[in-house]
Amino acid sequence: MISVTEAWEHIDACAQALPAENVALDDALGRTLARSVCAYADQPAFDRSAVDGFALAAGQPERESYRLAGEILPGQPAPPAPAHGEALRVCTGSALPAGVAVVMVEDAVTDQTTVRFTATPDTSIVRRQGSSMRAGAALLGKGTSVGPGEIAVLASVGVHRPKVVRSARIVHLVTGSEIVPCSEQPAPGQIRDTNGPLLRALLAGPRCHIRQTLYADEAVDNALRVLDGIDFDLLLVSGGASVGPHDNTPALLQSLGFETVFHRVNVKPGKPLLFARSGNRLAFGIPGNPVSHFACAHLFIRRALARMAGRPPAELRAAALADGAPLRPDARECFWPARVSTDETGRATTAPLPWLDSGDIAALRGVDALVRLPGNREPPSTGATIHFLPLPTPAERALIQ
Amino acid sequence: MISVTEAWEHIDACAQALPAENVALDDALGRTLARSVCAYADQPAFDRSAVDGFALAAGQPERESYRLAGEILPGQPAPPAPAHGEALRVCTGSALPAGVAVVMVEDAVTDQTTVRFTATPDTSIVRRQGSSMRAGAALLGKGTSVGPGEIAVLASVGVHRPKVVRSARIVHLVTGSEIVPCSEQPAPGQIRDTNGPLLRALLAGPRCHIRQTLYADEAVDNALRVLDGIDFDLLLVSGGASVGPHDNTPALLQSLGFETVFHRVNVKPGKPLLFARSGNRLAFGIPGNPVSHFACAHLFIRRALARMAGRPPAELRAAALADGAPLRPDARECFWPARVSTDETGRATTAPLPWLDSGDIAALRGVDALVRLPGNREPPSTGATIHFLPLPTPAERALIQ
Repeated sequence: MISVTEAWEHIDACAQALPAENVALDDALGRTLARSVCAYADQPAFDRSAVDGFALAAGQPERESYRLAGEILPGQPAPPAPAHGEALRVCTGSALPAGVAVVMVEDAVTDQTTVRFTATPDTSIVRRQGSSMRAGAALLGKGTSVGPGEIAVLASVGVHRPKVVRSARIVHLVTGSEIVPCSEQPAPGQIRDTNGPLLRALLAGPRCHIRQTLYADEAVDNALRVLDGIDFDLLLVSGGASVGPHDNTPALLQSLGFETVFHRVNVKPGKPLLFARSGNRLAFGIPGNPVSHFACAHLFIRRALARMAGRPPAELRAAALADGAPLRPDARECFWPARVSTDETGRATTAPLPWLDSGDIAALRGVDALVRLPGNREPPSTGATIHFLPLPTPAERALIQ
Repeated sequence: MISVTEAWEHIDACAQALPAENVALDDALGRTLARSVCAYADQPAFDRSAVDGFALAAGQPERESYRLAGEILPGQPAPPAPAHGEALRVCTGSALPAGVAVVMVEDAVTDQTTVRFTATPDTSIVRRQGSSMRAGAALLGKGTSVGPGEIAVLASVGVHRPKVVRSARIVHLVTGSEIVPCSEQPAPGQIRDTNGPLLRALLAGPRCHIRQTLYADEAVDNALRVLDGIDFDLLLVSGGASVGPHDNTPALLQSLGFETVFHRVNVKPGKPLLFARSGNRLAFGIPGNPVSHFACAHLFIRRALARMAGRPPAELRAAALADGAPLRPDARECFWPARVSTDETGRATTAPLPWLDSGDIAALRGVDALVRLPGNREPPSTGATIHFLPLPTPAERALIQ
């Protein structure tokens, strides 16, 4: 049985960045730039007033008052510089001629025809052409994750259809004759499907999306019929991943032309995980319990999707172990559900949540970390430095809060 | 001029939670529960096998071998307990009768008719009815932010249309005759609109959404025409928020029936910010520069939207100040763009990014924190504990990575 680290190495070796596409600027949010972006022009493109106020020729002797010779409205091209003894009214953002100084409106007294200043005209409250970026300067590198700031930068240089990595097309097949959709009342022995909604929620984002959740019983033929003609970059199969007589995911993936990369990882939860490839298409067979799904999605599937998006995968982070539910030692390396806080110095602390086993769905409430516990060791004590995989919190998933 | 803390108090006093609505389970992701949820039934609803293996009556004397009396497939109701001397094949998830112990398939040797065990039958590898949650137990409180784990818990108890707080309807009006859409080539004196794409990206999420970005010049009449008949919970007006002769946002909001709550905050960037209310509808007039937009969205608009979603707002966190761009002292309280990392002990560190002024759009690349610098003080030294407002990172915004 391979270790988690070995499983990660296999995933890194198999998962290739998807092809690029041009998308509308709004749709680039959360995507990865497939091409670097330079400034096509200076930014600002012209000298602009940084304040509401008055512009006058710089370097002239100071006077008692100046004749008000007009106004530069935002959006107008810059007029010639005012003559000595004259001033122009300006707004924040007004285009300025070369060689002017500015006085803020707060430092001016004006009537209809003249203006007097209580402060010295200042050439530094002009936003100079190119002060934010110079034409030709590298702005955003290939591989940059596009957040709101990057969207604004792209807009400012007119890149309104940036080239980004294509979003991964995921198909999810839920297997098992005991599964009914969560809106139905299960008969005795049946259970509601939680893995469909869980994976759709975990993998809902601009870089990937579960296009279809399909249902089938254990029989390979039925699963093949359900999947017939459906295209995907990543196939996720829930249940049937183990080695029992009704565990048909290995046979299903083989029938679909996939080659097994690994099967079974020395990890808790998620031991029966299966990872397979067919060309650039990847597949995971995920053990059916919900906590196994949660952990496998964060530990392994997110990693494959990061590589497919042309991005580095999430890394484990250090934290202090806080008081929480008692940890149990295990022969396998374990990733324990936990909740992250920050102490008054800014240090992350992780409190383990109560957790029974891979079927304990209640343990998934409020989880925002999986704490790594090495196998065959006594659990760490409170205060010890541990490592954890950070998970996007519900608040962060909501983008704003 | 009021302080940031006073502005927050005003926002908290004015922003009311929006009404509730029932939505499809997938659409509840990132929303806030408007009603607490209890377990309607035990979870698991019946005793289930935790492994693939064999079930036999507990408490009988151990034997050399057992007669294989059949199989319990997942999805079937539990049969009566096997007689002494008999065993039933079971799968992970099979419903078990009362009073059985289980042996894992790895600890069994079997032919077509009998099975022998190399381990003692164990009653603890049964997932007991109600072990994860008991019927009637409180599962998720009102106000819970719904993440993937909460989605799975809701699915498991059949809550397929949860009651959540309605998403905020936002309308964004970009004012200024110098603004052209970012897909157009600006004439001399004009600039591309960056605030439309920026705010759509900052405020795109399940709890709110900019429904429309509208454009108008400075004239109040034109803006009123553009907004005519459009409904919203929150109106954002870009530009015209200051006190110059062409700053018409105060007059526009007055014409729309809004009452000013505050105008101007002692903060950098964002000083001219205007906040107004009309019943439960809120409005912000935002100073037109992009860094002001970015900071005001995170410092003030996110706070109003958190309250409208029935959630507590984001709190400042502690961190160590890391080496970065030199900080400048200012008379105003300042929120400086920065980048967060974590050191090897798990402590957050914030490195200030190079930043010129509120028009310096290049400073928005890679920002994931705004570091609070109190006004009229020397900037803190490297290593000092500072406080920052955490921003969702591009990776977190992408939900998975």
